[in-house]
Amino acid sequence: MLHVERIERLAEILSETGLDALYLGPSTDVEYLAELRLFHDERVKGLMVSSDGRCFAMTPLLYKEEMGAALGDRVTLKVWADSDGFRGSFRSGCEELGLIGKKIAVNDGVRAVDLIDMKNTVDAEFVNGTDTLSPLRKVKDETELGYLRRAGAIADEVMEYLAKFIRAGMSEREVQEKIVSLYNNAHGVELSFHPIVASGPGGSMPHYSRNDRILTGGDFVVVDMGCRYNGYCSDTTRTFFIGEPSAEQRRVYEIVLEAQRAGETAVRSGATGQDVDRTARKIIEDAGYGDCFLNRLGHGVGIAIHEEPYIVEGNDTPLQPGNVFSVEPGIYIAGKYGVRIENLVAVRPDGTAEALNNFTREMIMIK
Amino acid sequence: MLHVERIERLAEILSETGLDALYLGPSTDVEYLAELRLFHDERVKGLMVSSDGRCFAMTPLLYKEEMGAALGDRVTLKVWADSDGFRGSFRSGCEELGLIGKKIAVNDGVRAVDLIDMKNTVDAEFVNGTDTLSPLRKVKDETELGYLRRAGAIADEVMEYLAKFIRAGMSEREVQEKIVSLYNNAHGVELSFHPIVASGPGGSMPHYSRNDRILTGGDFVVVDMGCRYNGYCSDTTRTFFIGEPSAEQRRVYEIVLEAQRAGETAVRSGATGQDVDRTARKIIEDAGYGDCFLNRLGHGVGIAIHEEPYIVEGNDTPLQPGNVFSVEPGIYIAGKYGVRIENLVAVRPDGTAEALNNFTREMIMIK
Repeated sequence: MLHVERIERLAEILSETGLDALYLGPSTDVEYLAELRLFHDERVKGLMVSSDGRCFAMTPLLYKEEMGAALGDRVTLKVWADSDGFRGSFRSGCEELGLIGKKIAVNDGVRAVDLIDMKNTVDAEFVNGTDTLSPLRKVKDETELGYLRRAGAIADEVMEYLAKFIRAGMSEREVQEKIVSLYNNAHGVELSFHPIVASGPGGSMPHYSRNDRILTGGDFVVVDMGCRYNGYCSDTTRTFFIGEPSAEQRRVYEIVLEAQRAGETAVRSGATGQDVDRTARKIIEDAGYGDCFLNRLGHGVGIAIHEEPYIVEGNDTPLQPGNVFSVEPGIYIAGKYGVRIENLVAVRPDGTAEALNNFTREMIMIK
Repeated sequence: MLHVERIERLAEILSETGLDALYLGPSTDVEYLAELRLFHDERVKGLMVSSDGRCFAMTPLLYKEEMGAALGDRVTLKVWADSDGFRGSFRSGCEELGLIGKKIAVNDGVRAVDLIDMKNTVDAEFVNGTDTLSPLRKVKDETELGYLRRAGAIADEVMEYLAKFIRAGMSEREVQEKIVSLYNNAHGVELSFHPIVASGPGGSMPHYSRNDRILTGGDFVVVDMGCRYNGYCSDTTRTFFIGEPSAEQRRVYEIVLEAQRAGETAVRSGATGQDVDRTARKIIEDAGYGDCFLNRLGHGVGIAIHEEPYIVEGNDTPLQPGNVFSVEPGIYIAGKYGVRIENLVAVRPDGTAEALNNFTREMIMIK
């Protein structure tokens, strides 16, 4: 179903920013505008929205039936067959919307190889439109916030279960499979990303994916996971400990915890992503682990698992009510271990912060 | 692990085709060259291979440890931090390989928005490199063929189980979940794509994904699925019938079956993708259903589920030993039903065809 009011607000943004159109490939942007999940493959499909609010959809013949039903009469289907390729349909659509010679932004769902073919087909200026829809998407309304709260609460329940489930001797994969089953079967929701279960030295890689290690006494175990509720994502991390931590391990955990709390406390309307990142980062730097915090403090979350606003050095855009993002400091010591603690946080209408995760952040030691 | 001999053969291809380098984003191309699965997100990562065989890898700081371990000393890591962005590292890597002002192909794992930023960073000609690696990838060696045969045999076993499992009254989703469980749990393999279970009118959409319908007497049920064995994909489709088909339904099934057999029979070294497509398509056209066959006859399969060679009108490249691809004619009648039968086929060293699926193609009627 096309969200006509979102299309109209996008058309206003295009006019205000001097863009003549936005072309969106398979992406959460298309889900946001049309509740349509397009399969990302070699058959070019997507949605063109012009600054006067008119639209066409690039439609491979084998998707014609479902794309037509999903998009309705307001969107012209530009259907192309496997034997012809997409270029003729793309040119025809651009001609009908008067886009020849104009400025067209493309979003992050478009493939570079297709952009090259588009440029060889239509004489227009193509520019980076990654953030074109962000002014809309990064401000969540109450309905969206409700979904995000529920997604967060489900993730908390799964984390609580895991705190009792995880034991030395299990493989990372067993924990991962339990997480998948808890979300899919116990809660009837899909995952927002493939869960990360990183024990011992694997924990020093923030996006570790080998998953073949057996959990052992003396391990930190980083568990990073979330689900989608009505399309909206949760994303939370806790780091468990198997057995009894050393003084140094306790200290590292406490530094990360202090940084996470300080980051959340710094969140308010008007502060910038850079401010919040610096607040948390300073605690880790002052403790001597600055080189071990490998990434930005956080990323926005909505129907995408990574979106605006990014909580990163260099982002000086003020936070505003309706923003939702992660606060996830970590200390990653190559070859030894990693610790990360992550909550999602929303900026409330009154400008204060609301954590969407409420499971304890204190270290849980597994006997 | 870097496949050095594949890198060297790629460098030869680049020299022969007048390209100075190929830049590969997260994709099966990178898996093929380096057994490295890169997460596809907003952090730019990938591999540049120049025509003299030198390489650099774009590496976000938080992936430095695993990318370094996977790629080894032969590849220079160009590491960038979230706070800096990727552009400086990209420029530095291109300068070191002498690529300024040169011709760089990009593969299908690169995002258009990143290509736009690359062009604004490095003065070079960027061209469509979708097929640059295809001359290597589309010719499978005996090891690869062994994996593909095994992936096909597992898919056949799952299909055989389903023929006894599927019953009227089940939901499409139940069948789908059983398929996932059979692959993941019974066979210990991951899926090559999310299985399609399309009953009744859903079957007219080749990539149907709603999955909420209850199987009912009088339904065709299209089941399209496969797994990955040692990274190599299977992909097979059978269409079951619930109850007793009408004369027209029997006729449609027989036309598709005849087209599928004729397509397989037309496969030989030296025939073109277009020849094979035409042979199968003619049978459906002559029977009066030409407008209901919505897609190309087939696509290559390897570590990607869709790759060269494509079995489609316009492809006049001769097939050669080691090619593996699908033969999957269908008749799709909007609002009513669909029928598709799909086997993977390999071209043998002697130029003849070998089906990688051997489960019966005759209509299975479920009482």
